[in-house]
Amino acid sequence: MLITLTTDFGLKDPFVGIMKGVIAHIDPRATVVDLTHGIPPQDVFGAAMILRHAVGYFPRGTIHVAVVDPGVGSARRPLLIEGHEAYFIGPDNGIFSLLWEERQPKRIISLSNATYYRNPISATFHGRDIFAPIAAYLSLGVGPDAFGESVNDFVQIEWPKVVRSGRSVTGEVVYIDGFGNLFSNIRERDLPGVDREEIATVIGGVMIHGLAPNYAAAEMGQPVAVINSWGLLEVAANKESAARLFHVGIGEKVYISVT
Amino acid sequence: MLITLTTDFGLKDPFVGIMKGVIAHIDPRATVVDLTHGIPPQDVFGAAMILRHAVGYFPRGTIHVAVVDPGVGSARRPLLIEGHEAYFIGPDNGIFSLLWEERQPKRIISLSNATYYRNPISATFHGRDIFAPIAAYLSLGVGPDAFGESVNDFVQIEWPKVVRSGRSVTGEVVYIDGFGNLFSNIRERDLPGVDREEIATVIGGVMIHGLAPNYAAAEMGQPVAVINSWGLLEVAANKESAARLFHVGIGEKVYISVT
Amino acid sequence: MLITLTTDFGLKDPFVGIMKGVIAHIDPRATVVDLTHGIPPQDVFGAAMILRHAVGYFPRGTIHVAVVDPGVGSARRPLLIEGHEAYFIGPDNGIFSLLWEERQPKRIISLSNATYYRNPISATFHGRDIFAPIAAYLSLGVGPDAFGESVNDFVQIEWPKVVRSGRSVTGEVVYIDGFGNLFSNIRERDLPGVDREEIATVIGGVMIHGLAPNYAAAEMGQPVAVINSWGLLEVAANKESAARLFHVGIGEKVYISVT
Repeated sequence: MLITLTTDFGLKDPFVGIMKGVIAHIDPRATVVDLTHGIPPQDVFGAAMILRHAVGYFPRGTIHVAVVDPGVGSARRPLLIEGHEAYFIGPDNGIFSLLWEERQPKRIISLSNATYYRNPISATFHGRDIFAPIAAYLSLGVGPDAFGESVNDFVQIEWPKVVRSGRSVTGEVVYIDGFGNLFSNIRERDLPGVDREEIATVIGGVMIHGLAPNYAAAEMGQPVAVINSWGLLEVAANKESAARLFHVGIGEKVYISVT
Repeated sequence: MLITLTTDFGLKDPFVGIMKGVIAHIDPRATVVDLTHGIPPQDVFGAAMILRHAVGYFPRGTIHVAVVDPGVGSARRPLLIEGHEAYFIGPDNGIFSLLWEERQPKRIISLSNATYYRNPISATFHGRDIFAPIAAYLSLGVGPDAFGESVNDFVQIEWPKVVRSGRSVTGEVVYIDGFGNLFSNIRERDLPGVDREEIATVIGGVMIHGLAPNYAAAEMGQPVAVINSWGLLEVAANKESAARLFHVGIGEKVYISVT
Repeated sequence: MLITLTTDFGLKDPFVGIMKGVIAHIDPRATVVDLTHGIPPQDVFGAAMILRHAVGYFPRGTIHVAVVDPGVGSARRPLLIEGHEAYFIGPDNGIFSLLWEERQPKRIISLSNATYYRNPISATFHGRDIFAPIAAYLSLGVGPDAFGESVNDFVQIEWPKVVRSGRSVTGEVVYIDGFGNLFSNIRERDLPGVDREEIATVIGGVMIHGLAPNYAAAEMGQPVAVINSWGLLEVAANKESAARLFHVGIGEKVYISVT
């Protein structure tokens, strides 16, 4: 089976490699793909955002392991969530809570059966000791019920709400990618139903006229608003970092109006 | 088949992982290798340099996907280039133009057949929507002609010329690696045909005498000139960053003379 | 077979990708896992630390290639060390010397048989020209003796000693991970045999009372001492970088006493 890994471990340390060793030990035939290990430390919301917009591109049956886990070793539960297309394994801290807009999960298992843990379990690295081995046993064909008992709920985090008022829409920056592109929480369907040229986007005190078909539609270094690959309104700049250009960060307000 | 990925996406975001998901969805048996995702943003020349010196080490038939694509979504064509040993998939912006010193490509296909694209296509991520799926279908055995029509040309970028004058040679820094080693465009065969000890290299106002057999031939922290693993004259420093030592960047002139 | 790679190459350059190309060329069925490429440049001790604490998680027979090699191209020998569970390939500079606390290696081979090298060999990249091809041939089934002659010794580096005096223990910081957690060389068995609450840890002039069961046991931003996933006493801070909090680096003294 295919197993993806999403963590805040970075790539300086051998932690990701060690998880792959544990998986290969249990299921040598599993294929492991890194989704990203560049989540900012302890940024559960950032990881949840990424999972929301990435898991749909993987084959049916993929096992997604996500470990952004500031509560490691504390009472927070380790979970396996069985979705309609994929499995999710990680701590119960909201990391998988932005995935269920359309349908609720089929099954939620609290991973309480220590038979499938590594032994002994460390206080600081459940990615190695619990999540990687459970993913590998699931990949081998062990059924979800073997890992623990069904539970009915899991920790939720909120997708920040978009506010509409007449033909205006107010959202905020929810993700900034490595190019400095500013992803808002405003989806294409949240926009006023007008021509793309009539949309005006205001961020950091600057107004951007129209929605551009692509980055290159702007002059070099100039800002554009586009609908990006995640279906979100994005403020970017042609061959430039919009984050640097606007000096803004996560949470910055984005205002849409009609001109 | 083996598919390599070369991008300026970095590893903070899930974009590379998403491309691997798309590939696995279409051809679960493809093996994907990261060549690098650390190309500086929009640095098409840097990517072309890396491809020039890396693709020869991969097995025959490897599919190299390269996405450094500031013109994404604009009129620039997506291309498949069939070489004599490998395939190349990416935007037509010169990224594959430094590979054909000895022989021209066998076939160049403009990827106009949207049947093999993801649907819908985003404005900002053709790596996910065009290049990854085409690579995966090619890996599955779909023939190049299925993806579009043959074309006769593709965008060229220039390899900076080395200038000779008598027994002197002038080149420039074309790449700086993560150790701070300065790679020039001067190849071993461009050097005056004299003993290695008689070669003098001048960069940033400093003269380095002779060509060293290896880095450790210099005192700790001292500069050396070597012929490096890409066959290029490189200025390095023993256990030190030459870029920091000389305070120079890409484009800095490198002068060779005979002492 | 499974081959792991540990280097100081970083991920900006295509060097790691090129090694994977060389391996795939020779043994297309080898699976390659990155342990880490984020070793600080030329930090042989850092790589040795990581290997010591990581190789035990990989399947029996894994081939570990490690290239932190400031002496590349000089007289230092390239080695293959056959352990009881795994193989190790890299330069003879101490990188594999922290692995043999319990048992000595079964066999040490000096990789002198150039038949298995790439040809020609560069002066600067033996990862590509010697270590990757030897690993791939070993993975293919070529026996260790084919690669050169047996030797009896290899370069040793020292694990810094922990000093005990009565019920006090003095160690030092030997590794700092990407979260800023400070790993000491003090192992659980080095600690005075008292209750966890009675252990006092002093670092950077600050005393931390007790050993915590996990990071979250401390208030946000406050320091904790834990036994970490490598079995080492670690000074961390809840959702904070202890390295930043204490302004300390590798080599900083860590004092343990009983309260």
